[in-house]
Amino acid sequence: LASRLPAVGTTIFTVMSRLAQECGAINLSQGFPDFNAEDVLFERVGHWMRTGHNQYAPMAGCLALRAAIAAKVETLYGTAYDEESEITVTAGATQALFTAVTACVHPGDEVIVFEPVYDSYVPAIELAGGTPVRLQLSAPDYRPDWEAVAAAITPRTRMIMINTPHNPTATIWTRADLDRLAALTRGTGIIVVADEVYEHIVFDGASHASCAAHPELAARSFVVSSFGKTYHITGWKVGYVLAPRELMAEFRKVHQFNVFTVNTPVQLALADYMADAGRHTGLAAFYQAKRDYFRAALANSRFDLLPAHGTYFQLARYERISALGDTAFCEHLTRKVGVAAIPVSAFFADGRDERVIRFCFAKNETTLAAACERLNAI
Amino acid sequence: LASRLPAVGTTIFTVMSRLAQECGAINLSQGFPDFNAEDVLFERVGHWMRTGHNQYAPMAGCLALRAAIAAKVETLYGTAYDEESEITVTAGATQALFTAVTACVHPGDEVIVFEPVYDSYVPAIELAGGTPVRLQLSAPDYRPDWEAVAAAITPRTRMIMINTPHNPTATIWTRADLDRLAALTRGTGIIVVADEVYEHIVFDGASHASCAAHPELAARSFVVSSFGKTYHITGWKVGYVLAPRELMAEFRKVHQFNVFTVNTPVQLALADYMADAGRHTGLAAFYQAKRDYFRAALANSRFDLLPAHGTYFQLARYERISALGDTAFCEHLTRKVGVAAIPVSAFFADGRDERVIRFCFAKNETTLAAACERLNAI
Ligand SMILES: CSCCC(=O)C(=O)O
Ligand SMILES: CSCCC(=O)C(=O)O
Repeated sequence: LASRLPAVGTTIFTVMSRLAQECGAINLSQGFPDFNAEDVLFERVGHWMRTGHNQYAPMAGCLALRAAIAAKVETLYGTAYDEESEITVTAGATQALFTAVTACVHPGDEVIVFEPVYDSYVPAIELAGGTPVRLQLSAPDYRPDWEAVAAAITPRTRMIMINTPHNPTATIWTRADLDRLAALTRGTGIIVVADEVYEHIVFDGASHASCAAHPELAARSFVVSSFGKTYHITGWKVGYVLAPRELMAEFRKVHQFNVFTVNTPVQLALADYMADAGRHTGLAAFYQAKRDYFRAALANSRFDLLPAHGTYFQLARYERISALGDTAFCEHLTRKVGVAAIPVSAFFADGRDERVIRFCFAKNETTLAAACERLNAI
Repeated sequence: LASRLPAVGTTIFTVMSRLAQECGAINLSQGFPDFNAEDVLFERVGHWMRTGHNQYAPMAGCLALRAAIAAKVETLYGTAYDEESEITVTAGATQALFTAVTACVHPGDEVIVFEPVYDSYVPAIELAGGTPVRLQLSAPDYRPDWEAVAAAITPRTRMIMINTPHNPTATIWTRADLDRLAALTRGTGIIVVADEVYEHIVFDGASHASCAAHPELAARSFVVSSFGKTYHITGWKVGYVLAPRELMAEFRKVHQFNVFTVNTPVQLALADYMADAGRHTGLAAFYQAKRDYFRAALANSRFDLLPAHGTYFQLARYERISALGDTAFCEHLTRKVGVAAIPVSAFFADGRDERVIRFCFAKNETTLAAACERLNAI
C-alpha cells in the first residue's frame, strides 16, 4: 500500500507527551492546561444529556451555539456573521482547518504557509493534491517578510494559511499586517485561512487583530477558532469556523461527509456557558499572570526567553546550556532534567534548527514552580 | 471558486428532518431514536468531567475505551485486535469512513460501492481523487450479483465499501457473502471498508456476519462501528475503526490531522459503560419488538412492506397509494399525511426510483402508533 502521506510520523506532541509520561517528567510540551474548567459547564452538559438531547445536531451545529458565537464575534470584532449560513461548529479547530483546505484546494493549487507551521496544515494541503509553498520566519521576532510573500504569490496560489496569536512562537500579527495581506491578495481570488484559536490570549494590552474584524479580508477568509483554549477544555474537541456564505457552502459540502456534526449536549452546554458574555474576558490577564510568573522564575536561569505576546507558549533559547540540536536537547531535558518541551525545529519541514524550544505555561503555579526549579538547576 | 463537490447539495436527512419540523410531521425520516439513553452513562460523563479529564485524549483514543472495544470484538467475533495499533476511536462512523478513504484511495483509483449507497461514501471517494464504480442492487431483496462484482474489479480497484446490516435496505450479508467477497479480492491488494454500525441490530435469530470475524477479510479490512446506534446516542458522534496494523498506520496519519482526537470525558464514560458486557445484548430483541409492532400496525395499510432483517429501518412500497415518484411522495406524506420518510432514490446517483421509501422505527410505541394511524388512513 503506497502511503498518501509518506513523510508523516507520529506528531511531536504525542511523542513528547508520551516521553514525559514514561520519564515522569513535568509535561510542558503538548499545549493543554493542568487545571480544570468550571463545574457550571459540566452541569450544563449533564442537564442536556438527562433531558434527552443526545441525538444528531443540525449539520452546521446547534442554532443556540451558532447564535452565541455570532453574538460574541459581533461584539468583539464588529462583524455580523449570519448564523444560518456563515457559521459552522466543528469537531475542533483542526477539523475546521482540514475541512477548509479539503473543500477549496484543488490538485495543483499552491497554498502559502509560514514556518514554523502547525503540523496539521501541510498534510491537509498534500491530501487535497495541493502544493505547500513554505515561507520561513526566524527567531526572535518571526516577522513576515512581505516582499517574500508577494514574490511567493503566483496565478496558482489558492490559499494563504495564517495563525495569530501564533503557535509556537507566541507572536501576534497587527492590523497593519492584515492590511498588507489584504493588499497582496486583492483581486486575486486567494482564500485566507486564519487560525485564531488563541484569540483571547494576547498580552500587555494588545488586542487581537482578527480577520473577522477586517471587512475586506473577512470577505475571503475562513476564520477558525475553538473552545478548547478559551474554556480549558482542549479534550472536548469543539471549534468553529466563520466564512462568507459561498465559501461556507463549499466547506459544509465536505463537513457533512467528514464528521457530519458535533456532540449535541456539549454544544448546548457551550451555548449556555457563552451566554455569560464575560467568560473569556479574564483570560488574557489570567494567562499573562502565568507568563509573568514563568518568565520571572526563569530570569536567573541560563535560558534566554524570547518575547511572548500571546498564546500560552514561551519560547526559549538554550545555547548557554547546551550545544545539542533542539530535538536532542528536548529529549535530554525530559529524561535528565524532568521537564518536557517541544523542539521548534519540528515545525519546519527541513528540520531547520535555530536552537529554540517551546514551553507551555498553561499550568498551575505549583507545576510551574516545580518545573522552574528544575530548569534553574541546569 | 470551482467546487470540489459540484453535485453535492443538502443531504436528504437534513432536508427531510427540516421539512418534518416545519410541517409538524412525525419524523420517521432521519435515523435516530426518540427515547433517551441511560442515566448511568450521563453520570459517568459528569464524573470524568468533574474529576478533571477534559484535556486531549491520546490521538488514537483513550486506552480504556480501546481496551473495552477490543474485549467486545474478541468476545463477539473471535478476533483479537491489538488496542495499541489496530483500534482507533473516531468522531463518529462517518469520520472513520471518510478518513479510511482519504488515507488509502489515490487519484485514479477505483472504489466499488453498492447502490443504494449511504450518501457519504461517494463524496469521500471523489475528494480523494478516486472514481466510484457503482453496482446497483434492486428491491425487494437487494442481493449482490457476484458476477457483476467480479466484472467490476479491475487492476485499478483499490477498495470495496460494504455495509451490513444495510442502511437503507434493512438487508444483511451472510458469512457466505463474505466468503464470496474474500474469494474475489484474494491476492488483489483490494482493501475492504465494512460499515457495520448496525452490528447489534439483526433480527429473527440471525447473527451479524462481521468482517472482523472473517480472518482472511479482516486482514485487509477497515471495520467501522459506532456507539450512536448501539447506545441511543447518535448525537454524541463517537465511533471506532478496526484494521490490521499497516492499514491503521495509514489511517492514523490522516486522522491525526483531521480531528486529531475525540472528546475525552465521553470516551472514558463509554469505556465504563461498555465494561458491563451485557449493554448491547438486549438490543436486537428491543428493536425486533419495534419492527414487529410497526409492521403489525401497518399490516392492513396500503403500504407493501419489504423484508426487514436488521437496522432500525423499514422499507415500504406505496404503489397501491400513489403514482408519484418517491421524493414527491415523501414530500406529500410529510406535508399532507404528517409522517416524514426518506425516498430510497436519494441513495442512487442517477435517482433511480423503484418507488420505495424508508421509515425509521427507532421510536417510542406512542410515536409509532400515532404515525401508523396516519399511514393507515391513506
Ligand atoms: C493536537 S495536540 C497539540 C496541542 C497543541 O496545539 C500544541 O501543543 O501546539
Ligand atoms: C447523518 S444523519 C443520517 C442518519 C442516518 O444514518 C440515516 O438516517 O440513514
